[in-house]
Amino acid sequence: MNDADDDLNVPIRSEPGEVGLVEPRDFVTTEPFVFDNGQSIPGFTLRYETYGRLNAAHDNAILICHALSGDHHCAGIHSLNDRKSGWWNNLIGPNKAVDTNKFFVLCCNVIGGCQGSSGPSSIDPRTGKAYGITFPAVTIRDMVRTQKLWLDSLGVQSLYAVIGGSMGGMQVLQWAIEYPSFVKRALAMATTAREGAQAIAFNEVGRQAILQDPEWNHGDYPKSGGPRVGLAIARMMAHITYLSDASMDRKFGRKAVRPKSPSSAPDPQVSGLKPPVSDSMEGIDPVAPAATFDVRFEVESYLRYQGQSFINRFDANSYLYITRALDQFDLAATHGTLEQAFAEVQAATLVVGFTSDWLFPPDQNRAIALALLRAGKRVSYAELATDLGHDSFLLESPQLYELVRGFLN
Amino acid sequence: MNDADDDLNVPIRSEPGEVGLVEPRDFVTTEPFVFDNGQSIPGFTLRYETYGRLNAAHDNAILICHALSGDHHCAGIHSLNDRKSGWWNNLIGPNKAVDTNKFFVLCCNVIGGCQGSSGPSSIDPRTGKAYGITFPAVTIRDMVRTQKLWLDSLGVQSLYAVIGGSMGGMQVLQWAIEYPSFVKRALAMATTAREGAQAIAFNEVGRQAILQDPEWNHGDYPKSGGPRVGLAIARMMAHITYLSDASMDRKFGRKAVRPKSPSSAPDPQVSGLKPPVSDSMEGIDPVAPAATFDVRFEVESYLRYQGQSFINRFDANSYLYITRALDQFDLAATHGTLEQAFAEVQAATLVVGFTSDWLFPPDQNRAIALALLRAGKRVSYAELATDLGHDSFLLESPQLYELVRGFLN
Repeated sequence: MNDADDDLNVPIRSEPGEVGLVEPRDFVTTEPFVFDNGQSIPGFTLRYETYGRLNAAHDNAILICHALSGDHHCAGIHSLNDRKSGWWNNLIGPNKAVDTNKFFVLCCNVIGGCQGSSGPSSIDPRTGKAYGITFPAVTIRDMVRTQKLWLDSLGVQSLYAVIGGSMGGMQVLQWAIEYPSFVKRALAMATTAREGAQAIAFNEVGRQAILQDPEWNHGDYPKSGGPRVGLAIARMMAHITYLSDASMDRKFGRKAVRPKSPSSAPDPQVSGLKPPVSDSMEGIDPVAPAATFDVRFEVESYLRYQGQSFINRFDANSYLYITRALDQFDLAATHGTLEQAFAEVQAATLVVGFTSDWLFPPDQNRAIALALLRAGKRVSYAELATDLGHDSFLLESPQLYELVRGFLN
Repeated sequence: MNDADDDLNVPIRSEPGEVGLVEPRDFVTTEPFVFDNGQSIPGFTLRYETYGRLNAAHDNAILICHALSGDHHCAGIHSLNDRKSGWWNNLIGPNKAVDTNKFFVLCCNVIGGCQGSSGPSSIDPRTGKAYGITFPAVTIRDMVRTQKLWLDSLGVQSLYAVIGGSMGGMQVLQWAIEYPSFVKRALAMATTAREGAQAIAFNEVGRQAILQDPEWNHGDYPKSGGPRVGLAIARMMAHITYLSDASMDRKFGRKAVRPKSPSSAPDPQVSGLKPPVSDSMEGIDPVAPAATFDVRFEVESYLRYQGQSFINRFDANSYLYITRALDQFDLAATHGTLEQAFAEVQAATLVVGFTSDWLFPPDQNRAIALALLRAGKRVSYAELATDLGHDSFLLESPQLYELVRGFLN
């Protein structure tokens, strides 16, 4: 898809307060791109969406950066039948905290991803086959540098703000460092300038679940197949780290699921994974089996659903690549110290930590703000008291909306 | 092995302050045992060890209860070449907090386990084949009731104390409830009267990793085979929950492993799992692969080692059974309220929580003590400030030793 002759401004559905119907577009370049590790690909695609209008001065653009499992679809709906809006629809829209009446909001799927942007599941034009793990290793900086090429192509000459949470927050920091005069405001939430050992450890277990799945086959698998079990396990585990003990207890506690009658159909929630044990045990034991490992608690059913829905939308190799990008991100190591990393930053910065976030805890967010402060930069730090865990940044929060609105005005 | 004609007292090696050489024994009964779920087996075995001597009054016995992946070998060594002592050797021994000069200390592998006690990997005498998942579902109460039969056979007429952490602590509580006049003192650490949703969730992901491994085969697999990958994934993940963010950061931080030369032999630590990607990628790419998923950080190498060593000593079906026992344990639900659960308790009780334990957090330990207090029982609660996570109860801690010593004297 050629972007040059496109109208950048997606039609806005008339429903007040909502972005409404949107459609994704593709930025396609045939210029080779050289990754941080020195390897290159002969061009790439970034899939993106935009909401609102770029003004005449070209200075009202806000870039949204997505997290590990997110994508370019951060607001609006793709069809009138859509049950779910984009992942940050509560924050972005007419008169919302990120006001699409005032701002031209953009979001793209990261390089290395699998929602339309080039990544391991894309076809390598040199071989006619999917890259698989011959796709170059991706860094947060590679994500940012490819985004800059895309923004240049759209005529965006500066960013009024760049906003993101979790891995999106890493991109925000990298943007402020990499293109200091381009970025006017940087808002990073629930993020870190480098992961601790525990976060790396969880990512490693997820990767092992994928790598050790026989269907992974060194990354060479058909689009509809692959290490679905390994990816589901990785996602189920990771999902726990996005929540909090308190929020899980409130939502699920020890609530039991209603036992299924033996004749009932398999739970559609787990239809892609192997059915629960009892459903496949017919004929093994003439009486009831002594022990089954069916879903007993609601939280189990919920997690199985999370695993199941993830494998239908995410590529396992992309999961490997992007978790590696997360683990390798280390601004202090790259620049000597965190203050040195921020030495050239010009953006006004807001960092937001969430008290119940145990994946990228408040301490790690505060450390970013402190380093910016020590580097003599304009920075604010806010810590929001929530008990919703890492995913707090994605959830309804009037407090967060006020912070964002205030920062942008 | 018949216990009737055995000397109960294992020879004590003369080395001062150490239990020394010990050997496991088996309690074997051919009396059918009826599990909580109503199903039965025609007799069972419990493997156990004892340290110290039962006194003439038969009133100096202390029972140690082990956690999920523990076993009967809690002190001493099995041979002079042993590099590792039993898992609670720091606590148990001559003049130690649990003083084997004064007490007769016993510990057995739980029913449902795989270290010599009857469990899914044991042979069902009725079929001549391993039980697999035809072994009845096991509860914490089943563990305790089988232990009582074993103690009866040894002539133990009361327990001076029963001590355990984590799942061992659940058994401690169940002992005090089930046999009120038999148990004089109960010491439960790092435990819970019922798991929260997050703990259940982690156990469920571990079970799914096993259940979805094709080698699981509905629980029917050869002793040397089975779902080794799934079990390793389950263990790697669970291991993270036994530590703390702070302790992992102190131990590993973001330390990188030394890159291997291409010609080096595969890392022996991961020899049982499939080798790292780069070792098996020869011939796929004539140049270096674009992305490999080798170990990069020390914490990854450590976790792979944990997964690897676990699959060499633990049975996957036992892991399923025992995690289910943990998840199903719910004293309040079983008895109406936690106070009612403790209504008949006669033991003096000490509950110990650890500040950095996020698997069974201090709150859950305090709740046990408060319920005992409300039920009018003799109870103390201690909260130890550590940053070592759930496993704090197993680690060197003069504070803990003093608490235990004080409680026993």
